[in-house]
Amino acid sequence: MNSLKIYQNIISDEIKNLVLPDEPKDLYTPIRYTLASGGKRLRPALVLLGCNLYKQELKQAIKPALALEIFHNFTLLHDDIMDNSSIRRKQLTVHKKWNKNVAILSGDAMQIIAFEYFTELPKNKIIPILKLFNKTALQVCEGQQYDMDFESRLDVSINEYLEMIRLKTSVLLAASLKIGAIIGGASKENANFLYDYAQNIGLAFQLQDDLLDTYGDTEIFGKQVGNDIITNKKTYLLISALKLSDDKQKIKLISLLDTQNINSEEKINRVKEIYNQLEIKNITEEKIKYYFNNALKNIENIELKNEKKEILVDFAKSLINRKY
Amino acid sequence: MNSLKIYQNIISDEIKNLVLPDEPKDLYTPIRYTLASGGKRLRPALVLLGCNLYKQELKQAIKPALALEIFHNFTLLHDDIMDNSSIRRKQLTVHKKWNKNVAILSGDAMQIIAFEYFTELPKNKIIPILKLFNKTALQVCEGQQYDMDFESRLDVSINEYLEMIRLKTSVLLAASLKIGAIIGGASKENANFLYDYAQNIGLAFQLQDDLLDTYGDTEIFGKQVGNDIITNKKTYLLISALKLSDDKQKIKLISLLDTQNINSEEKINRVKEIYNQLEIKNITEEKIKYYFNNALKNIENIELKNEKKEILVDFAKSLINRKY
Repeated sequence: MNSLKIYQNIISDEIKNLVLPDEPKDLYTPIRYTLASGGKRLRPALVLLGCNLYKQELKQAIKPALALEIFHNFTLLHDDIMDNSSIRRKQLTVHKKWNKNVAILSGDAMQIIAFEYFTELPKNKIIPILKLFNKTALQVCEGQQYDMDFESRLDVSINEYLEMIRLKTSVLLAASLKIGAIIGGASKENANFLYDYAQNIGLAFQLQDDLLDTYGDTEIFGKQVGNDIITNKKTYLLISALKLSDDKQKIKLISLLDTQNINSEEKINRVKEIYNQLEIKNITEEKIKYYFNNALKNIENIELKNEKKEILVDFAKSLINRKY
Repeated sequence: MNSLKIYQNIISDEIKNLVLPDEPKDLYTPIRYTLASGGKRLRPALVLLGCNLYKQELKQAIKPALALEIFHNFTLLHDDIMDNSSIRRKQLTVHKKWNKNVAILSGDAMQIIAFEYFTELPKNKIIPILKLFNKTALQVCEGQQYDMDFESRLDVSINEYLEMIRLKTSVLLAASLKIGAIIGGASKENANFLYDYAQNIGLAFQLQDDLLDTYGDTEIFGKQVGNDIITNKKTYLLISALKLSDDKQKIKLISLLDTQNINSEEKINRVKEIYNQLEIKNITEEKIKYYFNNALKNIENIELKNEKKEILVDFAKSLINRKY
C-alpha cells in the first residue's frame, strides 16, 4: 500500500468517527451525507503527507487535514447549487435530495466546522496556518466566480483560464501540502517549494481532467466522455481551439456551441474533428507535461532526503498517471 | 453622544475604509454593497464596549469587531435568499439585485473575510476567541434552521421558540460582548456574566420586536405594523395565543392563518382581537421585563466600577427603550 493510500484510509476512518449534533436534523444530516459520500480525500492526504515529510508523528495534522476535507466538501456542496448539478459521487446532490435552503445553510455550517478544526493547532502555528487557509479559501471563491463569469463569455483567454483553474482547484491542493509541512516543521522556504510543487501538479491534473473528458477512455475515466463538449464548458481544449482556429473553423465551432437541436454524439464528433485539425490533444498534453516538469523541478529545490523526494515524484506520477 | 454611538461611528468609519479586491466584480461588489447598507452596527459596538469596560485602548478590538459585523451581514445575506426577501435596509437584497448564485458565493466569501479579521489577535487570545466565535456561528445556523422548520409546524412550544431566538439572535450579541471583554482582559467569570447579560438583553429585544410588529406605532417602529400577522410568522405572540386559546379561539385563529383571500387589515384586526382576548400583549411585556431584569441581575454580579455598570444599564434601557 503506497503512503497516499495510508493517509486516505486514516482520513476515511476519522470521518467515520466524526461526531456531529443530531439536531436540527436538516442542518446536520446533509453534512454527514456529504462527508460520507467518499471522494479521493486528496486534500487531507496532502496535509498528512506534508507533515510526514518532516515528522513521523501525524497527530497534530489530523484535525487540520479534516478541516481541509470539510472545507472542500462545502465548496462542492455550494457549487452544486450554483451549477444546478443533480449528481455528485453517484448520489443526489444535497439541494436535489433536500432543497436549496438546506444546501445553503448546511454548507455554511460546514465552513464553520472546518474553521473549528484548526483551533487545536499549537499556538505558534495557528496564525500563519489560518492566514494561509483564509487566503486560499477566498481564492477558491474567486475561482468559482470566474468560472461562472466565463460561461457567458467567448473571449476567455488561455491565461485567464489557467488563472481560474489555479484559483478554483490548485491553490487548495497547494495550501493543503504546505499546511501539513508547516505542522511538520518545514522551513518557510521548503514549505513554499512544496506549495509550488502541489500547485503545478494541480494545474496538470485539471488540464488532464479537461483532456480526458474529451479524449479519455470511459472505462478508465469513470464518467461519460464528451460531457464538456455537450455542455459547452469552457475548457482548456475549447479555449485553445477558439484561439487557434481560422475564421472558417471558428464559425463552425461557435455555431456548434449555439445549436440547440443537435444529437449529442454528432456534436461531440464534429467538435472533436475541429480539435483534431488544430492538434488540440497534443497542445494540451504539452501543457500538462510543462506543469508536471515544473513540479519535478520544485522537488529538486526542496531540502529533503531522497526517499522522501521519491514519495513526491510517485505522488505526481500517480495523479498524472498516463503517459507523460 | 453616548458611548454606543461613539462605537458605532468608529465601526462605520472602519467599514468605509475597508479595502477589498476589485475583481472578480460579482464577488466583491455585493460585499461592499451589503456592508455599506448600514444597520445598527450593534454587534461590533458590543465588542468595543466589552473591551472598553476593562481597557482604555480599543485598538486590538477593532478588527474582531469588524469580523462580527461582517459575519452578521453574511448571515443576513444568506437568510434573505432562504426567506426570499426582496428588501433589506431599504435596498434590494443581493439575490434580487444580482442573482442567487452571486448571493451564495459572496456570502461565502464574507464568512471567510470575517474569519480573517480574527487573525490579528494576540497569540494568547486567539484560540479561546475563535472557539467561542465558531461555537456561536454554528448556533446561529442552528437557529436559522429551527426558524425555517417552525414555518411548517403549528405545535411549536414556547420553550422551543425561546431557544430558537436565543440561537438565532441572542448568542451572537452575547459572544460579541464577551469577545470584547476577553480582549480587554476581563476574568473568565466576568466575561461569562457579560455573556449572560447580553444574551438576556437579546432575548428581551427579540420579544420586543415581536410585540412591536403587532402593537407598535408605525412611526416609531419604522416598518409596517402587522407584517408578522399577514405572513403567519411564528412569533412569541402567535405561539402564546395558540397555547392559551380555548378550542373555539384556536379554530378561529388557525382558520385565519389558513385563509388565503382575506384583506390584510381585516386579518390583522381579527387576529389582534384574539390576542386581546388572551391578553397576549401583557404576557409578552411580562416576559420582556423578565429578561430585562435578568440582565440587570447579571450586571450586579460583574466586578466593575459603578460608572461602567451604568453604561451597561443605559445600553439595556436604550435597546428596550419603551416603558419596561
